[in-house]
Amino acid sequence: MIKKSLQELADFINGKVIGDANVIIAGINSIDEAKNGEITFIANPKYLSMVRTTKASAIIVSFDFKDSEKPLLCTDNPYLAYAKIAGLFHKKPYHARGIDPNAVIGNNTEIGIDVSIYPFAYVGNNVRIGDRVSLYPGVYIGDDVHIGEDTVVYANTSIREGCKIGKRVIINCGTVIGSDGFGFAKDGKVYHKIPQVGIVQIDDDVEIGANNAIDRAALGKTWIKRGVKTDNLVQIGHNVIIGEDTIIVAQVAIAGSAEIGNNVVLAGQVGVGGHLKVGDNVTVGGRSGITKDIAPNQIVSGIPAIPHKEWLKSQVCITKLPKMRKSLKELESKVEKIEKKIKSELEG
Amino acid sequence: MIKKSLQELADFINGKVIGDANVIIAGINSIDEAKNGEITFIANPKYLSMVRTTKASAIIVSFDFKDSEKPLLCTDNPYLAYAKIAGLFHKKPYHARGIDPNAVIGNNTEIGIDVSIYPFAYVGNNVRIGDRVSLYPGVYIGDDVHIGEDTVVYANTSIREGCKIGKRVIINCGTVIGSDGFGFAKDGKVYHKIPQVGIVQIDDDVEIGANNAIDRAALGKTWIKRGVKTDNLVQIGHNVIIGEDTIIVAQVAIAGSAEIGNNVVLAGQVGVGGHLKVGDNVTVGGRSGITKDIAPNQIVSGIPAIPHKEWLKSQVCITKLPKMRKSLKELESKVEKIEKKIKSELEG
Amino acid sequence: MIKKSLQELADFINGKVIGDANVIIAGINSIDEAKNGEITFIANPKYLSMVRTTKASAIIVSFDFKDSEKPLLCTDNPYLAYAKIAGLFHKKPYHARGIDPNAVIGNNTEIGIDVSIYPFAYVGNNVRIGDRVSLYPGVYIGDDVHIGEDTVVYANTSIREGCKIGKRVIINCGTVIGSDGFGFAKDGKVYHKIPQVGIVQIDDDVEIGANNAIDRAALGKTWIKRGVKTDNLVQIGHNVIIGEDTIIVAQVAIAGSAEIGNNVVLAGQVGVGGHLKVGDNVTVGGRSGITKDIAPNQIVSGIPAIPHKEWLKSQVCITKLPKMRKSLKELESKVEKIEKKIKSELEG
Repeated sequence: MIKKSLQELADFINGKVIGDANVIIAGINSIDEAKNGEITFIANPKYLSMVRTTKASAIIVSFDFKDSEKPLLCTDNPYLAYAKIAGLFHKKPYHARGIDPNAVIGNNTEIGIDVSIYPFAYVGNNVRIGDRVSLYPGVYIGDDVHIGEDTVVYANTSIREGCKIGKRVIINCGTVIGSDGFGFAKDGKVYHKIPQVGIVQIDDDVEIGANNAIDRAALGKTWIKRGVKTDNLVQIGHNVIIGEDTIIVAQVAIAGSAEIGNNVVLAGQVGVGGHLKVGDNVTVGGRSGITKDIAPNQIVSGIPAIPHKEWLKSQVCITKLPKMRKSLKELESKVEKIEKKIKSELEG
Repeated sequence: MIKKSLQELADFINGKVIGDANVIIAGINSIDEAKNGEITFIANPKYLSMVRTTKASAIIVSFDFKDSEKPLLCTDNPYLAYAKIAGLFHKKPYHARGIDPNAVIGNNTEIGIDVSIYPFAYVGNNVRIGDRVSLYPGVYIGDDVHIGEDTVVYANTSIREGCKIGKRVIINCGTVIGSDGFGFAKDGKVYHKIPQVGIVQIDDDVEIGANNAIDRAALGKTWIKRGVKTDNLVQIGHNVIIGEDTIIVAQVAIAGSAEIGNNVVLAGQVGVGGHLKVGDNVTVGGRSGITKDIAPNQIVSGIPAIPHKEWLKSQVCITKLPKMRKSLKELESKVEKIEKKIKSELEG
Repeated sequence: MIKKSLQELADFINGKVIGDANVIIAGINSIDEAKNGEITFIANPKYLSMVRTTKASAIIVSFDFKDSEKPLLCTDNPYLAYAKIAGLFHKKPYHARGIDPNAVIGNNTEIGIDVSIYPFAYVGNNVRIGDRVSLYPGVYIGDDVHIGEDTVVYANTSIREGCKIGKRVIINCGTVIGSDGFGFAKDGKVYHKIPQVGIVQIDDDVEIGANNAIDRAALGKTWIKRGVKTDNLVQIGHNVIIGEDTIIVAQVAIAGSAEIGNNVVLAGQVGVGGHLKVGDNVTVGGRSGITKDIAPNQIVSGIPAIPHKEWLKSQVCITKLPKMRKSLKELESKVEKIEKKIKSELEG
């Protein structure tokens, strides 16, 4: 078990202690679950009131917080400090498991050292797998796939032929990389399949959620750039490009050939139409539908997407629509009466 | 083949026969597919007209229905009666298959009696599996998982390390339990992964649909309580709590740390924001977005969600908006004319 | 490597060459990626400007396009011509792999000639598999399933007991066919499972995307007719019927017993309510919610769905709602003033 003094933790994250810096911390936990000997954190103001009842021995807070008798670890970014300290206490050391005899490995493969290839993992021909890669049970790796070092592919994930996966990538269970893009040409009433002969390229330090579907390109590549993080059940169409450090929340769908910039956030259940561009540093609110290009550096919501603040106002108005409609009808009748009265007076 | 008289079926579900109680029934089928010798049911008034054309030998109906020459089985809840009688005719008896030699079982496991562990199922170390549990081909059970008795895990489902599954749980194919929660702290432009070290706990009598993704908690547990039923492609974020006997329809997404009450219904494609509470006995209409806490005992719809009846009215108004806008402009011009006229008269 | 003269390609697709018909073509690529010796195509006017910069040796265009110094291959439908020519250059010949010794095959199966059954594929009892069928690693085929000739089932797909799959069907990775339908009857507060004893029938020439979930019928069958194409993460409930040559884009959800006509297009993230009918040749815009029957031969959008053009207008109005609301209030106050003035004049 790892034990650290509060001062050691402060040094680790470049923070500052208020109170007893010698208190010994042996774990990190949420504010309601933390026990004596553990540190906790406040990243969401919703939980501020629990500061008085938590059993934690110390609390990670921002510098503007001082209202506690407990030892405090102050920092600019309590959530980041929590991430780092949780990593310190919880990150499990990697143990290479080797290649299980119940795995199947194809011909002409290059497999690095210290890998962990579990039973029922299947590796095709001409595959290259880097050092310390983990392939869990039920993972399918098609022919000619490359996987960079330290990448983890969880159970029952399928990576089809020719795809390229970078280093330190995490792919959660049940995800599909390199499925056929949705491309058909209409021939009378019948659809004619367009061969999907491109690949998916996933760069370093990407994390892909569970049960995603990322289609291979029709021609060329579908490209997920460095540092992208996708949540669960995300759909990415063929030939899509996603910029660096972009966040894709659960159940987002991005249609073919769309191009998402760097440092974008697509919130949950967003849809992006085909062949559209979303600029760098854009945040798209939950359930929005992108139907035209979005210029960089803004927050948008709705269908069609408009600046988020305007969208909030219009959504409130929607709930007032029946009342507005009634007011409008009353006004129409009043104005009609006035017009009649004026006319009759003029004529009278 | 099971055969029952209509009277025996009436006794089984506490119903009452109108007509020939001795007719022999050997199966149950839908009203358009039923053949002579089978019973059918009317649970949806849409299909009432088919009473005259059905070939069924008897019909399960509610007490207010009498308009048929066929023998009737009357009950307060025809749909429930159908469920029970279908169970009587169709439920297959369980036959233990044992542990297939093509399955892989880890060290230090406790496995109950009469289990069915299929080829290519993988069971990790320190796992406990109850009596009569079925693990279909391609099922992945991580280390330290517990599974209660009579639970069925269908093909290609992944249950990651440490998760706890109750008794009589059904998990449909392709589902992921215990994937990493979507937690990242921003450090400049780059995202820093927060270790997801909690678990998923699923209580007794839960059914999980196909291709669901239920994330493990960051700390503590994601908790699906007794009797919850989820449909397909449902996303449940880390640290979410779902109350007893709650229904989650297809493609719903629930963001991290949200708390859903007991006896709630979330209709298809609903989204629930993070850290929100939905009270007991709430029904949320299809495609709604929950952006703030919802008090118990109501039906809501829309984004933001409002009482369902108000929402219906506002949706109808939306289709009338172009006309309203035109009326408003005409009114403005009329009023302007009136103002001018009044002014000129006063000045004239 | 396949090489063809431009004239040969024109003959192949019944097109007409403008310019040098003898130029030799050895591949097809996108307009920005094409190299010397390759042909490219313009199917989307967005990319017209790239005609001047492409390195392709020839371009597939529609007859109304003439503005290029490059050899042109003119056709009524450039996208269809691209599909056919891409098939010519890229379609890999099928090589039978046989039945891998690491696959498990049940009792009493009939397996055709020249099949490819990969390691870790599981085939249950009483299964019939046609000639040249491919079952990739991790595929689960339950008892009594039939699969027609030339069908491809990609990795980690599950097809449960009794389902019938036609000829030349393609099922992408991670998809679930025949999971239990979502049927429960309420008994007080508790839900009682309705046995789902029907099947899924998929007819010839269907393509199913990755990570779909297609539920088995409660009774009878869920039926996907000839030529249907589904994209990724699509949900199809029990007893749904989908007509011929219908297109279902990503993340669509269709609730139980809905009936979709022939030649329908359901765009991305659409939801269709239970027991509803969508007529032939209907197109439903992205993210729409179908809440009542839709007559044939129209384009609809929104919730409730209305004619697409009206919906576009109403969506624009939503963004103007705050302004409309302000105008309405100003008008009300103006009219009130006028009414007072008129009243005082009459009384004065």
